[in-house]
Amino acid sequence: MAKRMQPAWEAPKNTSEMKLELFNSLTRKKEVFVPQKGKQVTWYNCGPTVYDASHMGHARTYLSFDILRRVLSDYFGYDVFFVMNITDIDDKIIKRARQNHLYKQYLAENHQLDKVLEDCNIVLQHFAEVVKATTDPDKKNMQERLFEKLKTAIANIEAAIKTGNEKEISAKKEALLVDGKDLLSDWLDTKLGSTVTENKIFSELPRYWEEEYHKDMEALNVQPADCLTRVSEYVPEIVDYIQKIITREFAYESNGSVYFDVSKFDSSPCHHYAKLVPEAFGDSKALAEGEGDLSAAPSEKRFDNDFALWKKSKPGEPSWPSPWGLGRPGWHIECSVMASAILGQSMDIHSGGYDLKFPHHDNELAQSEAFYDNDAWTRYFLHSGHLTIAGCKMSKSLKNFITIQEVLQKHTARQLRLAFLLHSWKDTLDYSDNTMELAKSYEKTVNEFFLTVKHFMRTTPGTGVEAFTKWSKDELEMNENLEKAKVAIHAALCDNIDTRTVLETIRELVSQSNVYIEKLRSTGAVNRQLIKNVAAYITKIFNVFGMISKEESVGFPSGGSGSADLETLVMPYLNSLADFRDNVRKSAREIKAGDILAECDKLRDDVLPNLGVRLEDKENEATVIKLVDRAELMKEREEKKALEEKKRLEKEAKKAEAAAKAAALEAQKKIPPGDLFKNETDKYSKFDDKGMPTHNAEGEEMPKAQLKKLQKIYQAQEKKYNDYMKSQTNEQ
Amino acid sequence: MAKRMQPAWEAPKNTSEMKLELFNSLTRKKEVFVPQKGKQVTWYNCGPTVYDASHMGHARTYLSFDILRRVLSDYFGYDVFFVMNITDIDDKIIKRARQNHLYKQYLAENHQLDKVLEDCNIVLQHFAEVVKATTDPDKKNMQERLFEKLKTAIANIEAAIKTGNEKEISAKKEALLVDGKDLLSDWLDTKLGSTVTENKIFSELPRYWEEEYHKDMEALNVQPADCLTRVSEYVPEIVDYIQKIITREFAYESNGSVYFDVSKFDSSPCHHYAKLVPEAFGDSKALAEGEGDLSAAPSEKRFDNDFALWKKSKPGEPSWPSPWGLGRPGWHIECSVMASAILGQSMDIHSGGYDLKFPHHDNELAQSEAFYDNDAWTRYFLHSGHLTIAGCKMSKSLKNFITIQEVLQKHTARQLRLAFLLHSWKDTLDYSDNTMELAKSYEKTVNEFFLTVKHFMRTTPGTGVEAFTKWSKDELEMNENLEKAKVAIHAALCDNIDTRTVLETIRELVSQSNVYIEKLRSTGAVNRQLIKNVAAYITKIFNVFGMISKEESVGFPSGGSGSADLETLVMPYLNSLADFRDNVRKSAREIKAGDILAECDKLRDDVLPNLGVRLEDKENEATVIKLVDRAELMKEREEKKALEEKKRLEKEAKKAEAAAKAAALEAQKKIPPGDLFKNETDKYSKFDDKGMPTHNAEGEEMPKAQLKKLQKIYQAQEKKYNDYMKSQTNEQ
Repeated sequence: MAKRMQPAWEAPKNTSEMKLELFNSLTRKKEVFVPQKGKQVTWYNCGPTVYDASHMGHARTYLSFDILRRVLSDYFGYDVFFVMNITDIDDKIIKRARQNHLYKQYLAENHQLDKVLEDCNIVLQHFAEVVKATTDPDKKNMQERLFEKLKTAIANIEAAIKTGNEKEISAKKEALLVDGKDLLSDWLDTKLGSTVTENKIFSELPRYWEEEYHKDMEALNVQPADCLTRVSEYVPEIVDYIQKIITREFAYESNGSVYFDVSKFDSSPCHHYAKLVPEAFGDSKALAEGEGDLSAAPSEKRFDNDFALWKKSKPGEPSWPSPWGLGRPGWHIECSVMASAILGQSMDIHSGGYDLKFPHHDNELAQSEAFYDNDAWTRYFLHSGHLTIAGCKMSKSLKNFITIQEVLQKHTARQLRLAFLLHSWKDTLDYSDNTMELAKSYEKTVNEFFLTVKHFMRTTPGTGVEAFTKWSKDELEMNENLEKAKVAIHAALCDNIDTRTVLETIRELVSQSNVYIEKLRSTGAVNRQLIKNVAAYITKIFNVFGMISKEESVGFPSGGSGSADLETLVMPYLNSLADFRDNVRKSAREIKAGDILAECDKLRDDVLPNLGVRLEDKENEATVIKLVDRAELMKEREEKKALEEKKRLEKEAKKAEAAAKAAALEAQKKIPPGDLFKNETDKYSKFDDKGMPTHNAEGEEMPKAQLKKLQKIYQAQEKKYNDYMKSQTNEQ
Repeated sequence: MAKRMQPAWEAPKNTSEMKLELFNSLTRKKEVFVPQKGKQVTWYNCGPTVYDASHMGHARTYLSFDILRRVLSDYFGYDVFFVMNITDIDDKIIKRARQNHLYKQYLAENHQLDKVLEDCNIVLQHFAEVVKATTDPDKKNMQERLFEKLKTAIANIEAAIKTGNEKEISAKKEALLVDGKDLLSDWLDTKLGSTVTENKIFSELPRYWEEEYHKDMEALNVQPADCLTRVSEYVPEIVDYIQKIITREFAYESNGSVYFDVSKFDSSPCHHYAKLVPEAFGDSKALAEGEGDLSAAPSEKRFDNDFALWKKSKPGEPSWPSPWGLGRPGWHIECSVMASAILGQSMDIHSGGYDLKFPHHDNELAQSEAFYDNDAWTRYFLHSGHLTIAGCKMSKSLKNFITIQEVLQKHTARQLRLAFLLHSWKDTLDYSDNTMELAKSYEKTVNEFFLTVKHFMRTTPGTGVEAFTKWSKDELEMNENLEKAKVAIHAALCDNIDTRTVLETIRELVSQSNVYIEKLRSTGAVNRQLIKNVAAYITKIFNVFGMISKEESVGFPSGGSGSADLETLVMPYLNSLADFRDNVRKSAREIKAGDILAECDKLRDDVLPNLGVRLEDKENEATVIKLVDRAELMKEREEKKALEEKKRLEKEAKKAEAAAKAAALEAQKKIPPGDLFKNETDKYSKFDDKGMPTHNAEGEEMPKAQLKKLQKIYQAQEKKYNDYMKSQTNEQ
């Protein structure tokens, strides 16, 4: 009976296994993604330099990597640990902060018109030189616009001065200060920049724009980093890091700054400079831009290709102590240090915008590999593509510089994300009306399908015997469509996270589902379970893509069915609150505890109204609680405000009217009686030497009766005028 | 310049990649799981035979495979297609349906006492023989109990007859019919079973119990199958399938039934009978049980080991047409046919309870492999372990037969699932008080942690600059703990889905997190982002395990608040309550206001616990609010109170409003028409002797149109006033 044992078993073969490939800038092709340790993926993403509002270029980078991060984590099941930095020490920040400060100071000094005009003319002259020296056509274009703007503003005020109209002059002066802000600030900075020493000025600006950045990202449903690092918090670590690179002889100090020795590094057998963009080796323009506007003279460096790790701070620049004197970190070193501090000597993914490849990321690689003496500090380098606006490069000079906030006023975050998903993350994306129309149309198509499925889910039983019916050929076919879509979507996601193909596959699946539903709906045989599965699968993919914004819930849900109304749910808690307050208030009155009584009033007057709750204190009766619609309450508040504003304006108008009347009376007094009729040439043609009319407009002698009337008016004016003249004399 | 190209790149090595292994009954060891086609996993699970309430044995099977299905799909990312059958044609169903029907009929016939007593005595005699013939001790034990029960009932009624008390006799007669139900039904069935012919009787019973089964599964948060098949819907397919097996000469017809030729199959070189339990080959007892109570005589079969594919139906048994005459499918064939109809010739996973291994699953394998002429119809066969009750086998005779409904009255579905998760799915699980206590204690530990994290999430900013602080050594260590837990949990899930180790790892992670929080909370430096990440990860794993029941949402969320849970709704109000109390308490302490402090304590200790709210006072930190699960009763009571209060207030408000209106009307009447406009000096400056305005506030004469309007108002008031005066006079 040897056969009465289990037979041999052979493992199945998977006929269509696929592996995720990512486009790696280190090889410029798709490579199979292999994390170094199990399912863990360590990831460092280059964050923003915070000195202005985030624009669509930022959206392109952060949205793209948010999508990739979500797909790696929620679709492929990796444990992604996502670190990002905030660059809050940078030449751009320093300049902007100084300029803002000096401009505000200049305004506060409230200069005479002469002085302002003189300054602006100097600025204009000075700037004419700058424009002349600029070669970049785009930059020149922008500068010329700014120049014209200031020139026009100056011309305007000069014209106003000629009219002598004080009001006009004052308005034009204000306009000049607004229109000339950029150039004036810049000029003030070159003149006075070095006098700005208060550190707060250099930390408040980045803090403000970082806050705005977080708001923008939240509005875009971009997940926050797991760990966020700020340069200002890592200066000691940066100093230590640089020290070690010097010890390793890949960097040297020069005149209080420290530079990376590119030649030394590049000539080491295990190292290689400019791995990402070898073609850019020696691109002095790109390198200079990377060094920043406030760099020291290049003559300090041993070689042109060397770049700063530590910059000596001049007067008017924030500084930290170091073995090389007071200074601040160079741009590239921060990322090497902070990524290393959190992720160690080798990370799986490093990402950033396309324009950061050289010199920023190449320099990062050089620094970190010099520090660790390894050659794989970053295993996969990902760069998101450019963004153009209606086919053009986005720039302030082209007036197509669009902030995230502006975009979100026109489109929802989901529509914008859809537009991004409909394009390859690594290629150029053109933001245009057409792009957005396509996204909106896609959203509509899928949403119609969701609504149809929801209808069936509402109108047919969700569980029990009735919920399950036998599958016919139609259901087997439809299910086959679903399975095929899953396979195609998996293949697309493995292919460098090709979200565009995913969305096209979903569109096809939706259309197949609609055909299935239309075919069977008349017989009432649409299989609920199946179309729900289709819709649930699509919803799952949309969730992976971050298209459905939702609060991440933590822990077990706490009781309560969601459908109960707010009042029923909330009232018990409010009752206990009101009772507690009543008792406290009674005791507090007895012992005259003013602070506590004030607290009771604050709760009633400030805190609860904001929550849509009205407490009404009653004598000899429990406090009445009213749950009013918060929106309604706020609307009422708005209306009340509007009404008050209207009344205020009416009052002002009346006042102005009265003032005008008074002014007219005042003016009337000042007319000498002899001049009273002289201008009325439509009525009178000749006057006597006192100024009384003698002939009417037709050249006839004035009738006596009329003359008498005029004499009365003349005498009245004579009296008014004499009184006025007398009062003037008394005043002197 | 050959070096100015990108250097060679080498893919990283993953030093700790792991693969999912599952315990495969076909080899009795863990095997690496390889699906046959990409990420798709086809799965057939043996469903229930629906003729009675689902018990804990069912829970063991369906809960276990629900957990495995969720882990494969939601953790490992497989596209699982889960098919399950409902056995609604079966000897047990036929007998139970007939017995129920005959018993009801007997009751409806309303027999005289003599007749009932006579019948019951016959039943007793008949059953004595049955007990005698039974050898299985467990079965005998149960039969003896039933015998005694009937015997006692008969004795009771005989005693009642002697008393002559009609009421007593009637009561005892009813008791006899209840206590004797099982034996009486069985006896009626042997006598009259063949007379039951109406088909509805055989379909209503399984339909009822299938409905109950779905309800039980929903209560246990077991996901419904993607495709559910019922035997009654697949009879033609079954006939075709059997026909093909006959054609392949692995089955033969005999006396209107069809049998599978085990010897023929087993002797084929590429086939092997009883792959799962080769030791059971020839176990005639097990085989006979598999054949069912209503089988034909074994003499019809060529060999003892052959089993029925098609059973000829005798009178009193439902039947369907076939080439072999009227009959019905055997038990094993249904699964082969339905799994094949939906999944084709080879599936990745087949699962079922441990007791189905032989003969059911071994016969399925034989049939299907004979049909397809392959030897890998099922690639991985999974069997869930037994369930014992407090150490004993579950059986009706031991009175430890527990239905799912009974369990859910004592414990929540989550607690039961936790108890299952704390044991290996393939080993025996002992359901006992101790088991459940361990599960509840585990739930409490983790929930306390969730509540703590939620407190921090509520009381610290979720986004913006403030939300991110620099990581110290503590955060790096805690994050390392989290990463290690993820690695350990992944390893445990790869190891045959070892949920027990997963839960132990989570317990350890919770304890590490609590240590971290306690260390830092006094300095206010607990890193919100980090502990939220920990809690979110644990929540994610609990979601994977099905521990958090939630509606599967489909499509884009429609508008705001619909799905908000209690916590989201209530917390703003509780926050304001806690803040208020904090401030009051601080002031009260300063001025030593004992009464108010007592009030603060009462709120925390008496009032809020009743509402399921726990306040935890902390020194130098805002009070911690925890929303804990409260008794349903408390909630109902409070809601009712709130509703009554609301109604009362509404009523009162209406009354007050009406009273105010009436008073205003009353006052209006009493104004003499001449006084009507006199007070409106902001509008009018002069009046005639009737009191009619003649000049407006500016001193100009009233326009005629306006005067006309005022006259109308005047006349109306005149009438009102005269009526009022008249009524006053009449009253006097």
